[in-house]
Amino acid sequence: MSEHPARARDAGLACGDLPTGALNGITDVPGVRVGHRTLIARNIRTGVTAVIPHAGNLYRKKPVAAVHVLNGFGKSAGLVQVEELGTIETPILLTNTLSVGTCCTALVRHAVEHNPDIGRRTATANPLVFECNDGYLNDIQALAVTEADARAAIDSASPQFDVGSAGAGCGMSTFGFKGGIGTSSRRIDLDGGNYHLGVLVLSNFGRPGDLRLPDGRLIAGPESPADRKDTEKGSIIVIAATDIPLSDRQLKRVIRRSGVGLARLGSFWGHGSGDIALGFTTGTILSHDATAALVGCRILNENRIDQLFEAMADATQEAVLDALVAAGSMEGRDGHHRPAMLDSLYPIGPVTS
Amino acid sequence: MSEHPARARDAGLACGDLPTGALNGITDVPGVRVGHRTLIARNIRTGVTAVIPHAGNLYRKKPVAAVHVLNGFGKSAGLVQVEELGTIETPILLTNTLSVGTCCTALVRHAVEHNPDIGRRTATANPLVFECNDGYLNDIQALAVTEADARAAIDSASPQFDVGSAGAGCGMSTFGFKGGIGTSSRRIDLDGGNYHLGVLVLSNFGRPGDLRLPDGRLIAGPESPADRKDTEKGSIIVIAATDIPLSDRQLKRVIRRSGVGLARLGSFWGHGSGDIALGFTTGTILSHDATAALVGCRILNENRIDQLFEAMADATQEAVLDALVAAGSMEGRDGHHRPAMLDSLYPIGPVTS
Amino acid sequence: MSEHPARARDAGLACGDLPTGALNGITDVPGVRVGHRTLIARNIRTGVTAVIPHAGNLYRKKPVAAVHVLNGFGKSAGLVQVEELGTIETPILLTNTLSVGTCCTALVRHAVEHNPDIGRRTATANPLVFECNDGYLNDIQALAVTEADARAAIDSASPQFDVGSAGAGCGMSTFGFKGGIGTSSRRIDLDGGNYHLGVLVLSNFGRPGDLRLPDGRLIAGPESPADRKDTEKGSIIVIAATDIPLSDRQLKRVIRRSGVGLARLGSFWGHGSGDIALGFTTGTILSHDATAALVGCRILNENRIDQLFEAMADATQEAVLDALVAAGSMEGRDGHHRPAMLDSLYPIGPVTS
Amino acid sequence: MSEHPARARDAGLACGDLPTGALNGITDVPGVRVGHRTLIARNIRTGVTAVIPHAGNLYRKKPVAAVHVLNGFGKSAGLVQVEELGTIETPILLTNTLSVGTCCTALVRHAVEHNPDIGRRTATANPLVFECNDGYLNDIQALAVTEADARAAIDSASPQFDVGSAGAGCGMSTFGFKGGIGTSSRRIDLDGGNYHLGVLVLSNFGRPGDLRLPDGRLIAGPESPADRKDTEKGSIIVIAATDIPLSDRQLKRVIRRSGVGLARLGSFWGHGSGDIALGFTTGTILSHDATAALVGCRILNENRIDQLFEAMADATQEAVLDALVAAGSMEGRDGHHRPAMLDSLYPIGPVTS
Repeated sequence: MSEHPARARDAGLACGDLPTGALNGITDVPGVRVGHRTLIARNIRTGVTAVIPHAGNLYRKKPVAAVHVLNGFGKSAGLVQVEELGTIETPILLTNTLSVGTCCTALVRHAVEHNPDIGRRTATANPLVFECNDGYLNDIQALAVTEADARAAIDSASPQFDVGSAGAGCGMSTFGFKGGIGTSSRRIDLDGGNYHLGVLVLSNFGRPGDLRLPDGRLIAGPESPADRKDTEKGSIIVIAATDIPLSDRQLKRVIRRSGVGLARLGSFWGHGSGDIALGFTTGTILSHDATAALVGCRILNENRIDQLFEAMADATQEAVLDALVAAGSMEGRDGHHRPAMLDSLYPIGPVTS
Repeated sequence: MSEHPARARDAGLACGDLPTGALNGITDVPGVRVGHRTLIARNIRTGVTAVIPHAGNLYRKKPVAAVHVLNGFGKSAGLVQVEELGTIETPILLTNTLSVGTCCTALVRHAVEHNPDIGRRTATANPLVFECNDGYLNDIQALAVTEADARAAIDSASPQFDVGSAGAGCGMSTFGFKGGIGTSSRRIDLDGGNYHLGVLVLSNFGRPGDLRLPDGRLIAGPESPADRKDTEKGSIIVIAATDIPLSDRQLKRVIRRSGVGLARLGSFWGHGSGDIALGFTTGTILSHDATAALVGCRILNENRIDQLFEAMADATQEAVLDALVAAGSMEGRDGHHRPAMLDSLYPIGPVTS
Repeated sequence: MSEHPARARDAGLACGDLPTGALNGITDVPGVRVGHRTLIARNIRTGVTAVIPHAGNLYRKKPVAAVHVLNGFGKSAGLVQVEELGTIETPILLTNTLSVGTCCTALVRHAVEHNPDIGRRTATANPLVFECNDGYLNDIQALAVTEADARAAIDSASPQFDVGSAGAGCGMSTFGFKGGIGTSSRRIDLDGGNYHLGVLVLSNFGRPGDLRLPDGRLIAGPESPADRKDTEKGSIIVIAATDIPLSDRQLKRVIRRSGVGLARLGSFWGHGSGDIALGFTTGTILSHDATAALVGCRILNENRIDQLFEAMADATQEAVLDALVAAGSMEGRDGHHRPAMLDSLYPIGPVTS
Repeated sequence: MSEHPARARDAGLACGDLPTGALNGITDVPGVRVGHRTLIARNIRTGVTAVIPHAGNLYRKKPVAAVHVLNGFGKSAGLVQVEELGTIETPILLTNTLSVGTCCTALVRHAVEHNPDIGRRTATANPLVFECNDGYLNDIQALAVTEADARAAIDSASPQFDVGSAGAGCGMSTFGFKGGIGTSSRRIDLDGGNYHLGVLVLSNFGRPGDLRLPDGRLIAGPESPADRKDTEKGSIIVIAATDIPLSDRQLKRVIRRSGVGLARLGSFWGHGSGDIALGFTTGTILSHDATAALVGCRILNENRIDQLFEAMADATQEAVLDALVAAGSMEGRDGHHRPAMLDSLYPIGPVTS
């Protein structure tokens, strides 16, 4: 399959006309790293993906953050505190639905290890874990993910990372095809400064037959017409990172536009889907140990926010296509199978040089 | 202009594959009526549109309802109480932004007239007024709408009503073209019963050049490339009606999918836009004067809600196209002009027989 | 009645142990002014109260703001945009429920007058109007408030203002007694700087017999035991001002604590009550015409926010008592009567020298 | 300590004048059971408490439910889905902050065991776990709670259960005293039918010196004045159960009044506190496997809801006092100590016969 394009853009699936970052990925935001731990064995097709906002102690140096629930049929953990305080304080983990508890515990241990005053002389830590249901390809009841797997994902984080069936993306499906991890970014210039908005998705949503490409083509699903009107199942997690200084309210407005990208792809945010977006900015970091009463910061002139909205919509749309392009076909538990989108696309799609 | 198609479907702009109601409009929901009062004079291009949920006393017989704010840069009134109580109790009025106050007062007088105990032996009434900014074509500073105009819109309500530049739609713009009022509906069969979900939009949003047709074609805007990257201004109001019994929470989930329809059309829910959806169901009516402690009702089996989501997305998308198709070009204040979309579309669009 | 104490503190009804500002009122926040227009005639007992955040052009220089709905059985206008953008851009008006529309229109005209580009070359304005139902003492169906009255309230704004039955407070009731306008403030020292949090209430809530004084005494209501278990009707509007730089999220957290003050007074935030809080800070003003992409500002170190929470709870509680102390008994429409709380309190309360 | 009163009412600390249920506890709601697993060893003072809504398969028969976040500085899990769907589908577990992950996993295994189609032919399950930080008395970093402990709490559930330092309450503190589990209920008669609203709290909030008894007395805290102005730390979880048929919106309105009870006790819902309420009703159970499109149900006539608001406020207030009365003094990790409130109260409190 080496002749296949590796990324959505290689397959001619660019979204919008804003410029991308150098990597066209979430790690175009300086300091952001991503790590995977992929688990494949017998009936197991699952894993953990870690997004690390910056290289410092996250509990001590909290990025401003926001969450937005597009459709709340999901089990992600840690949203309440982000909503109240507008910050995050641990790495962000993505995994399968039934492994959220294990990943929470792993993050707790990680936080305590780096901050021995937690639960003693200072507050506790808020583990942030997001999930999709990979039960079609993965034996999700096996609860195969361990705390060590979660730690391995964190420890392997790097600016370079795989897309497709890596990490938490291992067992995921999208519009009836093999889904998984995808990413994309946009460059945003503000008053002469170069900034980025990057998106990473864990893509596991969409009814077969509903997928629409940026040029308007509807892609026939891999399944029979009888399956066509299935309930939209699965979920999608959208993680957005930026280095533009934003307030948590502004960030929430931005990540809400992830829904635009999903709608353009053919989703109507189905009932059975846990569609959740988290955004953070490395442009404003709040110190856990600050002593001054007032803290200086910068926020965006709200009149300029439309370009972030457009970037968010475009990058979300492209990140899902990125997952679809990167993920090869996969055989999973009990003979369940998901084909690669490219195998359906090629007869009509562009060929790379 | 008689050779022009009158409705979106006549122009080949159908959305999705669910069946429509007989009128393909909000008044396919039994009992729902719509009335207009259109004001055209010198620099005035504005009006009022009334949506009446049922023929009875709305204050005494309150439809279950919900609101959803897609983007809250708007001045609509009455949302707080709908959010708290899950019901509406007056006709719904749509008008220009600066006339919300006048329409509120008109609704208050209307409610008091029909319910002389208001503010004496029972509670007050919650006027529901939604708005878009028609200031490009209309001299909005003139505050041209009077209480009598609002009343006239209510009094003229009927199952048959005009789309395009009628009523509140008179001075509205959409993707750089003339916008206004549009409508569409979907028929939904549940356990042998025939139900409908109908949508009416007051469409005044979208950047020139961003409009996308259901078949994927991007419609070049009527303005110069210099205008292309303007801030997305204006707003859109989406009113959804159904006779399917739904709880207010279910209704809120349904109307949230209006955002899907808008995204498919090319919008990213711009910063400057007040994008607000209101839904009501005539399938559950709560009595103001109930004396029994417990009230029997029906709600939807949530496993069936995906077809309503899909219907909402499709009908919203089509209702906007309906407004674009029905609205002829218009000259407004100070020589401002909005062309009809069909004039741009025809070279490439279908010709009606 | 000249021997009566004029303010809650004069009657020994202080709340909490934080220091007050010099005026013990919302105008302790530098720049904030309050104006009243009181209407008394035959069956009319109503009015308008204006709170002006600063002396400049509010539309051009928008204070950061937040709203919180404690119980949404109310008709206040303008909340949607505050929630989305975190700013206010007009004076704040308080009035009776059925006069919200008229006050909205008055604010629109006021904004246009001072900003002729509104609705032409820039956006529209978001009128902020809050209300309580004074229908027991006032012939609310008369819609007695005019746009000129609203303007008069704005024009009379001053750092010195009346409490009790002034302005919008004219016809209001509280725990069966005469209610109305009350105010209180707390001084907050941060890193050597002197700041204030001030509260103004329009108090019109509480069941007779439920009022509890700060020392724990339950005040027998003025009505017969048969009335005791009436539904809690009416409403309360809480306006909070501060000069401490806060983000909109922080401000929302602060004003949410108004509910603590109301609960301490004996309320359980009754079903029929529209209990709404608005807060603004003059410590962060955002320019409508800013051109730079990024804006510098300051926010509070969140670890210090507890003193603001405490100040908010205490000042809300005391502001309601302030309204109760300041309001003399009143005869209203159709012979309806509300006694002064002090007449019930005196046998057991402190006597001023 | 046998001479001590066992419950708040035995100590003369009744709240409000509504009648209680026979047990004055959450298990007055028919079918509701509570179980504890208490862990005491060396530096360990923690545990798990389970609330079981009914005896059937909760995943198949989902009670209508709602959550309300009073202050979101907390790590409870499962709220997103309750907010979206208005139902719960697992037992409710309460534990210490760092053991949320372990309890989530235990609930997942429990659900899979009873529903082998989870993650295979049907959706996954949403574990509901609430927490407070018991780190003052407990070595919370030890993560002492195991999945077996969680299971033991579930398996021991019964209509009779201990209050005070039992289960998750083992290491909790309240207003500087020993806190923990408390409960209370109110009987509500509707149209001749007997219903109940019951509350269980995990109480771990409040600054020393701020506690106020129902008669208005302020209880001097056990700590020195220097500690008096500490940040309000800890948290409180409020679980409300009823057999009155309510919609999820109505339930949310009811449980929001838990904040009234907390405010009456002297709290201002401090910054550092995760104050979260969950309510469910056994009066409306939705079937996971329903096939009919429409479901009949009953909801409360909203005009009657004030008595539920009052019951919720009173029962929350009394449940916290119940925890304070029932909990004896405790020595915890590293010599940390929390005195019993009754030891401070006795000099001025009522003596039981």
